[in-house]
Amino acid sequence: MPDSTAPQRQDTLLRMVRMDRRSFTRLSALALAATRVPSFAQPASTAVKPVGYAAIGLGTISDIFMRACAKTQTAKITALVTGHPETKGKKYAAMYGIPESSIYTYETYERLRDNKDVEAVYVGLPNSMHREYTVRAAQMGKHVLCEKPMAISSAECRQMIDACRAAGVKLMIAYRIHYEPTHLEAQRLIQSGAIGDLQSFEGAFGFNAKPNQWRLTKQFGGGGSLMDVGIYPMNEIRWLVGEEPTAFTAVATTRDHASGRFAEMEQTLDFTLKFPSGITAALGCTYGSDMPGFLRIHGDRGSLMIENAYNYTGPHLFGIGGGVHVDTTTQGDQTLHFQLEAEHFSNCIRTNTQPKTPGEEGLHDMLAIEAIYKAAGTPIA
Amino acid sequence: MPDSTAPQRQDTLLRMVRMDRRSFTRLSALALAATRVPSFAQPASTAVKPVGYAAIGLGTISDIFMRACAKTQTAKITALVTGHPETKGKKYAAMYGIPESSIYTYETYERLRDNKDVEAVYVGLPNSMHREYTVRAAQMGKHVLCEKPMAISSAECRQMIDACRAAGVKLMIAYRIHYEPTHLEAQRLIQSGAIGDLQSFEGAFGFNAKPNQWRLTKQFGGGGSLMDVGIYPMNEIRWLVGEEPTAFTAVATTRDHASGRFAEMEQTLDFTLKFPSGITAALGCTYGSDMPGFLRIHGDRGSLMIENAYNYTGPHLFGIGGGVHVDTTTQGDQTLHFQLEAEHFSNCIRTNTQPKTPGEEGLHDMLAIEAIYKAAGTPIA
Repeated sequence: MPDSTAPQRQDTLLRMVRMDRRSFTRLSALALAATRVPSFAQPASTAVKPVGYAAIGLGTISDIFMRACAKTQTAKITALVTGHPETKGKKYAAMYGIPESSIYTYETYERLRDNKDVEAVYVGLPNSMHREYTVRAAQMGKHVLCEKPMAISSAECRQMIDACRAAGVKLMIAYRIHYEPTHLEAQRLIQSGAIGDLQSFEGAFGFNAKPNQWRLTKQFGGGGSLMDVGIYPMNEIRWLVGEEPTAFTAVATTRDHASGRFAEMEQTLDFTLKFPSGITAALGCTYGSDMPGFLRIHGDRGSLMIENAYNYTGPHLFGIGGGVHVDTTTQGDQTLHFQLEAEHFSNCIRTNTQPKTPGEEGLHDMLAIEAIYKAAGTPIA
Repeated sequence: MPDSTAPQRQDTLLRMVRMDRRSFTRLSALALAATRVPSFAQPASTAVKPVGYAAIGLGTISDIFMRACAKTQTAKITALVTGHPETKGKKYAAMYGIPESSIYTYETYERLRDNKDVEAVYVGLPNSMHREYTVRAAQMGKHVLCEKPMAISSAECRQMIDACRAAGVKLMIAYRIHYEPTHLEAQRLIQSGAIGDLQSFEGAFGFNAKPNQWRLTKQFGGGGSLMDVGIYPMNEIRWLVGEEPTAFTAVATTRDHASGRFAEMEQTLDFTLKFPSGITAALGCTYGSDMPGFLRIHGDRGSLMIENAYNYTGPHLFGIGGGVHVDTTTQGDQTLHFQLEAEHFSNCIRTNTQPKTPGEEGLHDMLAIEAIYKAAGTPIA
């Protein structure tokens, strides 16, 4: 695969980063990161045919994903799968130049098999539908980029991994944080020894959920705030530590008994993780308040903070406590993270390489989620 | 007690607060707080004789306390108790105009009984010595302002409460956060409904402890980072919630096995609290990294953050997530918190009122600490 556009690509990423008083240090660091992290420095060559994706489920997150693909040279929406073909289907088909013959329903999903313009699917469905539409896509020979959480149980995750392996297709879980420049910079700083040996973390993420949505039902959500938002800091910590947690404590709670939102799952869950090396984390997540995502990362020589960590835009990384000097925010609209993950998966397909966040990454999160729910005394399903 | 100096006192406090773009809102709020919170609006009348304190233990924290008293009109250091009478004793006696006859050692401590210039003691000793020197002070008829943690077990706390009650003296635990303007402003905002119903908290505090100090020994510290620094966010949360936690989870860990610092206690402890109303907290503390103190406070209509929360200077309170608008930092040097708590206790003595943070406050923290250590599987002593 030609690499001639890599410097240009790198410049684009650098421009996303706000210039500040530490800009020179930052630029050097980012340039280094770009040369070391494959997903970050991928060439977006015009000489390579874009990967055609079918977007399955046309809700909010698929809307962003489709807009993101339109900004890439390597990912192109070529088909749609929706329960509303006449409205949403035709609207998005017109927006992205998709022939009406490539609008599918859940009943006609199997016909995707014969659409040669579709090499991969993007699964933007409710959690409990991820397994079925992933397995069936694999059986049709399509690669799968599946939203997080990967599914609603580790057993389902294993079925998805097995199906993709059996079909010889790639499976990537859409952990957008792994492809985001500011989070990559945090990883690079940690790996460079800037804060010494990792010791512990605090973090959280949550929002005040409106009633009457699929994520508040056991049938579609499969679990509560842990599966949807608590997974963010937990996944990032697993990634940064590079180990799997082996001990868990948790407490679940519901304060709002009036609205009926939490009839089927917990409102809030606070939990701790412990890794084999002794690194620990204290974390919270909720559907009951707007709990801005954050991660505090402590080493024995300094601490980092990521504020606004898990929204679609603008994570802000800075040193706290004086041990390390960094202050950077990623610029870009809400499509950026999705653009980067789409480009990564397209590149993996074209170069036949393993995604950085394969199905096993989703499985490990789900195993941790099950252990946390068990510790809380709340069954996952 | 004359109240004529109250407006002047209030002005002084207001000047401590940094002026910023929300200064008007802030000033109004603080003025309101000053009229509602007795400890905050106490007159420092020159017409009232200052309370004479004996400082017991002349380490770092007593040094700050003595400097703080020198700035008040209601608290005066009139005696010293030290193992180094010829060096530290004479030095501080000269600094604060204390006669050399009022320098005591631990062997001559009982002679304090006959010193009419001493109405109260400030216990700035290692944790495991708090009980003995509090009980003996009470038996000499002296009021007691004791540093946190109150002692090293709930049984000791009860002995201290009983001894002070039997002797008819007041007992206050030096929880300086309860007297600090920015933390009081957080409490006021919560009570005003600014963030809606309280839901959950995240917080932490810790530092990278130098080896060979009393707090790293079981004999003098009585426990690890939880007793010394984890107590800060936990105590503040108990205070803000106004309930006692009833469920606890915890995980203890030690990463540093090389330095020998953690031979007798945990390095890091992450834990959760749950209150009867369903409010929860996820917290961390450590002696193994510089973990800046923070508290994130979530209501169902907004969230507050206190950064730099537990150092001696400059807590910074601000809204996060858009639900509430506040941005304030207390100005003042490291004596301010101590000055405010000394003035509060002096006022309680002069007006025969109960301190806001009596022995029972320390006992409740110790009961929680014991429950957390039990949950972690680590014995407290």
